[in-house]
Amino acid sequence: MRQANIQLDAEGRLKHFLGIEGLSRDLLTQILDNAERFAPVGDRAVKKVPLLRGKTVVNLFFEPSTRTRTTFDLAAKRLSADVLNLNIESSSAKKGESLADTLRNLEAMQCDMFVVRHQTSGAAAYIASQVAPHISVVNGGDGRHEHPTQAMLDCFTIRRLKKRFEDLTVAIVGDVAHSRVARSEIHALKILGVPEVRVVGPRTLIPPQIEAMGVKVFHRFDEGIADADVVIMLRLQQERMQSALLPSAHEYFRVYGLTEKRLKLAAKDAIVMHPGPINRGVEIDSAVADGLQSVILQQVTNGIAVRMAVMSMVMGTQAVGSAA
Amino acid sequence: MRQANIQLDAEGRLKHFLGIEGLSRDLLTQILDNAERFAPVGDRAVKKVPLLRGKTVVNLFFEPSTRTRTTFDLAAKRLSADVLNLNIESSSAKKGESLADTLRNLEAMQCDMFVVRHQTSGAAAYIASQVAPHISVVNGGDGRHEHPTQAMLDCFTIRRLKKRFEDLTVAIVGDVAHSRVARSEIHALKILGVPEVRVVGPRTLIPPQIEAMGVKVFHRFDEGIADADVVIMLRLQQERMQSALLPSAHEYFRVYGLTEKRLKLAAKDAIVMHPGPINRGVEIDSAVADGLQSVILQQVTNGIAVRMAVMSMVMGTQAVGSAA
Amino acid sequence: MRQANIQLDAEGRLKHFLGIEGLSRDLLTQILDNAERFAPVGDRAVKKVPLLRGKTVVNLFFEPSTRTRTTFDLAAKRLSADVLNLNIESSSAKKGESLADTLRNLEAMQCDMFVVRHQTSGAAAYIASQVAPHISVVNGGDGRHEHPTQAMLDCFTIRRLKKRFEDLTVAIVGDVAHSRVARSEIHALKILGVPEVRVVGPRTLIPPQIEAMGVKVFHRFDEGIADADVVIMLRLQQERMQSALLPSAHEYFRVYGLTEKRLKLAAKDAIVMHPGPINRGVEIDSAVADGLQSVILQQVTNGIAVRMAVMSMVMGTQAVGSAA
Repeated sequence: MRQANIQLDAEGRLKHFLGIEGLSRDLLTQILDNAERFAPVGDRAVKKVPLLRGKTVVNLFFEPSTRTRTTFDLAAKRLSADVLNLNIESSSAKKGESLADTLRNLEAMQCDMFVVRHQTSGAAAYIASQVAPHISVVNGGDGRHEHPTQAMLDCFTIRRLKKRFEDLTVAIVGDVAHSRVARSEIHALKILGVPEVRVVGPRTLIPPQIEAMGVKVFHRFDEGIADADVVIMLRLQQERMQSALLPSAHEYFRVYGLTEKRLKLAAKDAIVMHPGPINRGVEIDSAVADGLQSVILQQVTNGIAVRMAVMSMVMGTQAVGSAA
Repeated sequence: MRQANIQLDAEGRLKHFLGIEGLSRDLLTQILDNAERFAPVGDRAVKKVPLLRGKTVVNLFFEPSTRTRTTFDLAAKRLSADVLNLNIESSSAKKGESLADTLRNLEAMQCDMFVVRHQTSGAAAYIASQVAPHISVVNGGDGRHEHPTQAMLDCFTIRRLKKRFEDLTVAIVGDVAHSRVARSEIHALKILGVPEVRVVGPRTLIPPQIEAMGVKVFHRFDEGIADADVVIMLRLQQERMQSALLPSAHEYFRVYGLTEKRLKLAAKDAIVMHPGPINRGVEIDSAVADGLQSVILQQVTNGIAVRMAVMSMVMGTQAVGSAA
Repeated sequence: MRQANIQLDAEGRLKHFLGIEGLSRDLLTQILDNAERFAPVGDRAVKKVPLLRGKTVVNLFFEPSTRTRTTFDLAAKRLSADVLNLNIESSSAKKGESLADTLRNLEAMQCDMFVVRHQTSGAAAYIASQVAPHISVVNGGDGRHEHPTQAMLDCFTIRRLKKRFEDLTVAIVGDVAHSRVARSEIHALKILGVPEVRVVGPRTLIPPQIEAMGVKVFHRFDEGIADADVVIMLRLQQERMQSALLPSAHEYFRVYGLTEKRLKLAAKDAIVMHPGPINRGVEIDSAVADGLQSVILQQVTNGIAVRMAVMSMVMGTQAVGSAA
């Protein structure tokens, strides 16, 4: 609830977007509805709406990222904002300036929004707690904590294809323990009313007491995937493959890789999702990643619309009618 | 002809711009004519036309380049496009994503054009063969294969100054063997009707059987330059200077460097060209590079207009009247 | 006077902005007045004016900088210019191109303005002396020579808060010897009519014969700050702390750090300034940097308005009425 508070203004409108935890079903639905209005912009000849014209969006990346930075960059440009890309590791840190001073200075430059990616859990919320009132903060992934726009684009994709959340079984498979994506997804799916959310993986990669989040734990993939309507495969980080937590990438694929054969155990019309970038032959077989049930690239497309929705909402500029 | 096919749509219009080989004289002339219409934009107070507004152009550079990237960047911005600069070496490759997956993702982000530079011959054509139908690919230089916008800006410069191609003798001098610029130029000059294209250089730097491209080979510079109307000096790559193919940079300059004295052997009104960046005192003397017959900087200026023409053509947005 | 000449066109209008030295009080006042008109743009919902639409501004940085580059970038974007960020160390230099050739090429690309930062004193003026007539050069800091936009934003901040320069005592404290900021500030304050400009610091960090610039030298901080209306603290560079010029950062703070106690010696309504980034606990105590008398962040905000003013003036596009 503390987290929810800092994200909302006095009228309950989204001011920052830091994490899914503690947000209401109404608010998540509002994000999905707004994203639905932005989705057609990407298909137009002129992929641009003037909602954030003259606003300055800062991509404040303390951790390298191509994909997330690129989609936020494109979303901001399609909203007509000016974008400043700052890789903090390689810039002011060199001169030994503190994070607080960097923030103070960007505020003083009258920037309007910080999209923050940071290796430390809680960094985005910390920054939101520090910034001047006119600044909005959007979490682009913080440590193992949350990656809320990823969760919302996943839910957007699910809603588009499955229509309603109330009848679904969703299986999240892989390295749940180290995944901010998984955490945000679990929160979002539960809030939106998915009755059965499963997490599937080896004991070393499933956090203890995760059942408290309202999920069912499976260690055998065949059981976890049975009759699932949505299968979300998590990326296995390189560093995990080399650690003592796993025997080998090859062995991992044998036990937790999504193959066509295994996918047959899911519901007949199950969809396969992945936050990307995918490791072909590690957590997912190419035949599945490129197969008919894969919606991985739709997720990427939807990511732009969802980020446009979130960015316009935190700026208080979403024009319900005019975007579409 | 296979190459020509993939570059053209069903109506014979330019869809990708991958190489000069196989294109028709009409099409090359159309590019030059369109570039002529874009050239005045660079002289205006407001150097901008709205032809690509709301389009997303991705500079997909697998090989570092400042000049080519900058001119494509400026050309895209002057067409009002949004530009995404991706240095692929230092980004997704880190996470081990395949080229195909990178392309799929950029497509899913509804990008419209990829400007590709790659160290491998054929990379741009391969990418064009892989992308979704709505994407156009422009080759910014692939291995030793082609650099077609460079060739077109050279031809544009020649046409502006020499009016017609039909009477010209053009000498291309230097490391022809390793030069994608030379290959594209030879194709373009032959297609546009230049009766005599010469290549001039040491045996080690002239590919065997290049006569099959319709050129005359000269190993002695004084013979190759005699009465030439256009002298195109190629850049001698650093790595070549250090290899066994050449005795030394100093010795190279003595035999193949363009000096004022040597330039006197060309036609009286000969023009001197170079794709840049120039190596002063290696392939060209400063007195010539900065001399009255040099049109090297006009080439740079013309490069913007030619790239604007190509980019608007592949996007199907060249407005014959409205640009000028 | 030679310097002033190159900065002004035949009608005495600002063509380049290279240094404060030699400029007239009228011209500096004109910059401040124009900045006053641009200041409200930063508070608008749409922080953009169309004065430099279709112009190409090149940030030509030979020395790394986040803050200065960022503020010039934002100022240019808020003037609607297209911005090209070139880090010269990591680009054309690789291919061994000379500075002159890099400039020639950017000119040929019809760029309109170069914002230059360089580690060598005089680099901006040298570049201004070399460029084509249509190009304006703005000095973003050259060696130990000048950083004129920093001085103007300081004077803008002083004028806003102190109204007039004629009654002021200004103390500049710290590493004056290595500071281009200090040099530009001294020139600007003297030209604008500040009767008493003091420089305060250890003998090793105050240049000999600086009195010739019209300043009073103090080696004891308590004496130098006495009754000052404005206290400008300079950043102590990391390399200075490690050199033989100073005993230690800790010792420096004891003798030349600005503490609340020491600030009490200044005028009661004294303001504290710093060009940033600040070294907390080295040249300034956090209690002062974040205290009520600190205007350090106002300096940052004012920096955008001042840079917009300078950029529009050198481009000859400042519209006295339309910007506000």
